[in-house]
Amino acid sequence: MEERTELETIGEFGLIERLNPKREIRNESTILGIGDDAAALKYNGKVILVSTDAMVEGVHFDMVYTPLKHLGYKACVINFSDIYAMNGTPKQITITISASNRFSVEALEELYAGINLACEKYNVDIVGGDTCSSTSGLFISITVIGEVDEDKIVKRSGAKPNDLLCVTGDLGGAYAGLLVLEREKVTFKANPNFQPDFSTYEYILERQLKPEAQKEMIEWFKENDVLPTSMIDISDGLASETLHLCKSSDVGCELYIEKLPLDYETTRTLEEFKIMPDVGALNGGEDYELLFTVDQKDFEKIKTNENIKVIGYITDNSQGSNLITPQNTTIELRAQGWNHYRKEE
Amino acid sequence: MEERTELETIGEFGLIERLNPKREIRNESTILGIGDDAAALKYNGKVILVSTDAMVEGVHFDMVYTPLKHLGYKACVINFSDIYAMNGTPKQITITISASNRFSVEALEELYAGINLACEKYNVDIVGGDTCSSTSGLFISITVIGEVDEDKIVKRSGAKPNDLLCVTGDLGGAYAGLLVLEREKVTFKANPNFQPDFSTYEYILERQLKPEAQKEMIEWFKENDVLPTSMIDISDGLASETLHLCKSSDVGCELYIEKLPLDYETTRTLEEFKIMPDVGALNGGEDYELLFTVDQKDFEKIKTNENIKVIGYITDNSQGSNLITPQNTTIELRAQGWNHYRKEE
Repeated sequence: MEERTELETIGEFGLIERLNPKREIRNESTILGIGDDAAALKYNGKVILVSTDAMVEGVHFDMVYTPLKHLGYKACVINFSDIYAMNGTPKQITITISASNRFSVEALEELYAGINLACEKYNVDIVGGDTCSSTSGLFISITVIGEVDEDKIVKRSGAKPNDLLCVTGDLGGAYAGLLVLEREKVTFKANPNFQPDFSTYEYILERQLKPEAQKEMIEWFKENDVLPTSMIDISDGLASETLHLCKSSDVGCELYIEKLPLDYETTRTLEEFKIMPDVGALNGGEDYELLFTVDQKDFEKIKTNENIKVIGYITDNSQGSNLITPQNTTIELRAQGWNHYRKEE
Repeated sequence: MEERTELETIGEFGLIERLNPKREIRNESTILGIGDDAAALKYNGKVILVSTDAMVEGVHFDMVYTPLKHLGYKACVINFSDIYAMNGTPKQITITISASNRFSVEALEELYAGINLACEKYNVDIVGGDTCSSTSGLFISITVIGEVDEDKIVKRSGAKPNDLLCVTGDLGGAYAGLLVLEREKVTFKANPNFQPDFSTYEYILERQLKPEAQKEMIEWFKENDVLPTSMIDISDGLASETLHLCKSSDVGCELYIEKLPLDYETTRTLEEFKIMPDVGALNGGEDYELLFTVDQKDFEKIKTNENIKVIGYITDNSQGSNLITPQNTTIELRAQGWNHYRKEE
């Protein structure tokens, strides 16, 4: 009998590893392949960044509470985020949309209104796409192309011991927003006349439904002549991304729980759901903030930017990746992360 | 009440036009946007071509008779074809796969075996991707990046009156193959023990299940210093593509039915299905041959290549696009083409 391994048993990263063993590179223009936020191609001395991210109905979003315009916006932003995570600037996208006939032309126009809005805000051109039908559901795949100077590419692999571990913005908000939306969905199913009051959840709902990518941070790095030693965007949760970064850089880290940046609304909501805010900040996905490391010499510059928080530092690989509690005890850092195949969401 | 336009009423091209009105170009690097086989971007004087094509289960393929390895191969080839249609060379791809848990890890490995085989044959690097679950079915979207010298880009829009209209290979084979597969599927459903005999349909089944893109033709153009004035790949059928090319170039054409290149097996099979071979050659999709125009001065070179057939010539726009029958009567050329939203397949 043929072997059959279920997708859910190996997870997304396991699958990527199985489908993408080490490959020979065939073209000179391919300078960085699979394994970072974006691939890097070099044409006539110029580096082009390329990344692809998809959103699937029932997996990444629920049409019950996702406005199509927001969905189009988010589908773009999560792709732009991958280019920023390489210290690049997104320039062009191509879009593939597959929609069942449950969706009307007007619905797709609404989706495109969000895509257009994101492209306007982030100064990106839509240069191609493919729109086709599906037998069920809505599928959006976007490929983004960006640019970066070759000596300014920031990979996941450049962190070195004693570098500072930094994060932008605040964490756990998108996850808190998702919890609220899922709760109201259940209430709505029980009583379709129910009108949820979202007024005290505005920030976290926006974090979930209409996130932003860190354009200003990349511009600030340039203006202030700061070049992170490594960087990754936070889509799967801080814990998971920190481990990715440490693994790629072959280093360890100490991450201080009390330094985790948490917004008040996020904290209040997570507590409402009996989730420890730190746990939400470490494992909640979809914040699209940047996690990066800088050399200690850049500390004076970094501390002038209110949007950056130093949450720890890089250590030698032999020391492992650890969380430091407020009581100064050490816990091994583990990733819960998102595994769509295990349907944890 | 809100307006609701069904997707099936406006077709793929109607939808593309509605979702992509004329847009301002925001980045200098965007030199050619939506509307050709690929977009063209210019970075440091080098032109990069980008194109995206998706394949959706139940729309573009049927798992009953599509081996996963062939599917992976075809998903790549249809993308490479778009780059060749701009006179370029494909160099890198990114892949998005969304699969329900009906598919095992081994099934996706089989799909990737086909993708790897195509990339090896066409000398292309896989530089990124996104693999996620779906609630039903299999979805594959590939974005291809290629290169071309700026003065060698061939668009759809360059045909001029008196140019020769040429086509590579032969036509209608992929459509004939699809007819055979659909027939055997019906027989198989009625009697699951039935083993179809495909031995007399080998060529057309390969045309449908494992098509090739026209790499050699682009190399021949270069070696022989031939630069087509316009070009498009034949994915939606010759009639449809000819009209696209004429519309983009603002010209008309005369296309001789008796010049249509037809393979013997294709002709025999179409007749078996009571379809006039000419009609199959004009409207059958998925041949992935190239349709192009050349200046008459290139005729001496063109005629030395057995793989190229001159099927007509370009006229002034005012004369329209016409078919010339063997009896020398003129019929207006119309596109049947593929409209996935109308479920013609």
